[in-house]
Amino acid sequence: MASAAPEAEKKEEREEQEQVVNPWEVSAGKGGIDYDKLVDQFGCQRLDATIIDRIGRLTGRPPHRFLRRGLFFAHRDLNEILDVYEKGEKFYLYTGRGPSSEALHLGHLVPFMFTKYLQDAFKVPLVIQLTDDEKFLWKNLTVEESKRLARENAKDIIACGFDIERTFIFSDFGFVGGAFYENMVKVARCVTYNKVVGIFGFTPEDHIGKSSFPPVQAVPSFPSSFPHLFSGNDQLRCLIPCAIDQDPYFRMTRDVAPRIGYQKPSLIESRFFPALQGENTKMSASDPNSAIYVTDTNKEIKTKVNKYAFSGGQDSEEKHRKLGANLEVDVPIKWLNFFLEDDDELENIKKEYKEGKLLTGEVKQILITVLSEMVERHKIARALVTEKMVDAYMARRPLPNMFG
Amino acid sequence: MASAAPEAEKKEEREEQEQVVNPWEVSAGKGGIDYDKLVDQFGCQRLDATIIDRIGRLTGRPPHRFLRRGLFFAHRDLNEILDVYEKGEKFYLYTGRGPSSEALHLGHLVPFMFTKYLQDAFKVPLVIQLTDDEKFLWKNLTVEESKRLARENAKDIIACGFDIERTFIFSDFGFVGGAFYENMVKVARCVTYNKVVGIFGFTPEDHIGKSSFPPVQAVPSFPSSFPHLFSGNDQLRCLIPCAIDQDPYFRMTRDVAPRIGYQKPSLIESRFFPALQGENTKMSASDPNSAIYVTDTNKEIKTKVNKYAFSGGQDSEEKHRKLGANLEVDVPIKWLNFFLEDDDELENIKKEYKEGKLLTGEVKQILITVLSEMVERHKIARALVTEKMVDAYMARRPLPNMFG
Repeated sequence: MASAAPEAEKKEEREEQEQVVNPWEVSAGKGGIDYDKLVDQFGCQRLDATIIDRIGRLTGRPPHRFLRRGLFFAHRDLNEILDVYEKGEKFYLYTGRGPSSEALHLGHLVPFMFTKYLQDAFKVPLVIQLTDDEKFLWKNLTVEESKRLARENAKDIIACGFDIERTFIFSDFGFVGGAFYENMVKVARCVTYNKVVGIFGFTPEDHIGKSSFPPVQAVPSFPSSFPHLFSGNDQLRCLIPCAIDQDPYFRMTRDVAPRIGYQKPSLIESRFFPALQGENTKMSASDPNSAIYVTDTNKEIKTKVNKYAFSGGQDSEEKHRKLGANLEVDVPIKWLNFFLEDDDELENIKKEYKEGKLLTGEVKQILITVLSEMVERHKIARALVTEKMVDAYMARRPLPNMFG
Repeated sequence: MASAAPEAEKKEEREEQEQVVNPWEVSAGKGGIDYDKLVDQFGCQRLDATIIDRIGRLTGRPPHRFLRRGLFFAHRDLNEILDVYEKGEKFYLYTGRGPSSEALHLGHLVPFMFTKYLQDAFKVPLVIQLTDDEKFLWKNLTVEESKRLARENAKDIIACGFDIERTFIFSDFGFVGGAFYENMVKVARCVTYNKVVGIFGFTPEDHIGKSSFPPVQAVPSFPSSFPHLFSGNDQLRCLIPCAIDQDPYFRMTRDVAPRIGYQKPSLIESRFFPALQGENTKMSASDPNSAIYVTDTNKEIKTKVNKYAFSGGQDSEEKHRKLGANLEVDVPIKWLNFFLEDDDELENIKKEYKEGKLLTGEVKQILITVLSEMVERHKIARALVTEKMVDAYMARRPLPNMFG
């Protein structure tokens, strides 16, 4: 009979295994991120087949592969947005990025690829926030460097193909003020310091820039923050596509919204894009081999995938032919899940890999081809983005025919 | 032999007597505000005769009565400003107001009267911050009402006679953004939550708007917050005339300034203007009889002074003729100290009042005359302030010849 572990030890064990997911830290417990637990813990809803079918029906086009494959997997009040849309009304999209690195990696592109699909499918306006102030506050950057990175990142975002007639990109350092600042202050008055500590885990030794920031990310959820776009349309609904680590901001926002007379934003939330080394590790700016960047050469892509992508294949070819690959942990399969468009082809690869008919090297080669094409396309699009175009996307202007 | 009081009782007694001075609360201990203690506690410097003489010498005009009479009594690094000025360089002035009431009372005018003197004497530019965001955060006002009060208060401030060619008035809701916001974020990154709790006494149940606000009041101390005025002049020195309850903001500001490459602002700080009921009571918006407003009629002034102004005179005329008045607690004398320009006349009144030659009613009559004339002058000036003039003072424009 085993003796029960002392309480203290048990607690330690629990803590060791506990996953941490907030806007600045994502660390998995044992066995990777538990997304089911996250949905329950955050109190959001699961994105089920019914709602995905409904999106397909309403937009008259097949749901994006990110939806078909459960990569965007959770939501808050998405059905309300679809109800509004079905009645012939519109909404707007809001997404963003914290510009902390020179070049984006493929994980960074995921929300933008998905947002582009939503914009095209629903024909709605989009605001994109570049939180250069946040990165100044959290990273050891100067204001100038944060602003420069925001502008560089805007080029990669524009290269994703957003419709200039429906898209407004702004950086906080460039845009905070006026109605936007008024909304920041309105939100701030509704949130106690204890509350942000509970949501974000700030400590009293953290600088006040941290506890001041959540309202900045909250208020693009409110159309009145953009009088040049939505004047007179203060109850327009907002849909936010984002990775689920951003959920805390919008839980706070949704809590405050009705208290200041605004609509709660709806959310559609994605899983995390895994690092090359596997789902329990983090893509990290300090380890360029953990990610593929949109600036990587074909050769770099090939080397990184071959050398670092964690394989679920067996140690020897003989064993692999017999036992097949473990798809649950295989990074090339996870990445193809994100980026290979053809469902049948993907299913076929998975089947043959699982049965040992395909070897890891062959699957990696397929991935290298897919990534190289994708990165090549991005580079071409990025090269066509001029400073003038950046100015145009970031100009405080009405968007012509944005609901047309 | 008396037994020693238990520690708990002693502590309570100490706390009862303790004065509290911060931007939102001023309450005196027994015997009125102890300004000496405040100077020591805050760590500022006393404004002595040498420095007042120096101001007179440098400006070629007699020091303002507020200086001559010790009403502005403390400073921080004022000598450095005077050193700079003596070398032929300039500086700028920064003062402000939290617009929480429709009409200003005479206490509100004190810093503006003094600032006008400084502007005229030193011929320097001036920025005036109206913290409508602060009042929204602390009072139960709407954003619209806070903005409206800011604009109404601007009219009273303009009526004080500031030179339009050297004065920029702004409200936070109207002006926060751009370089000003960048400086706010820079300051916020340098101040921990613990630090603002220590300085301002916020609690974790206070909303985050409160702990977010101090950088807003800090950054007008830095010329780079006003690129339309001081572009290329980032090391220009700043002098802040204010009541001493605002010192905590600028202690924080001075602590941060060198860490972000800016000059520390200098300060010149006033005593509080006493309520009609005496120095231990507070002028309060909820008790209109505690103050004289710039909108009061002559009759109201007369009634308030006669009925409510705390007198240091004796109970009966007979006793008064014999013992004379106690000037230390007499409010009419305190107010004349602020507003009667002629030093000889004031000394004479004090002498005769103290000796019992002047009766309280006679001193009150002198005060009523002084106040009525002052309020009348203000009303006439205020009536001449048009909406167009407010727009002009508040326009984001270069100030022509501001150092001329």
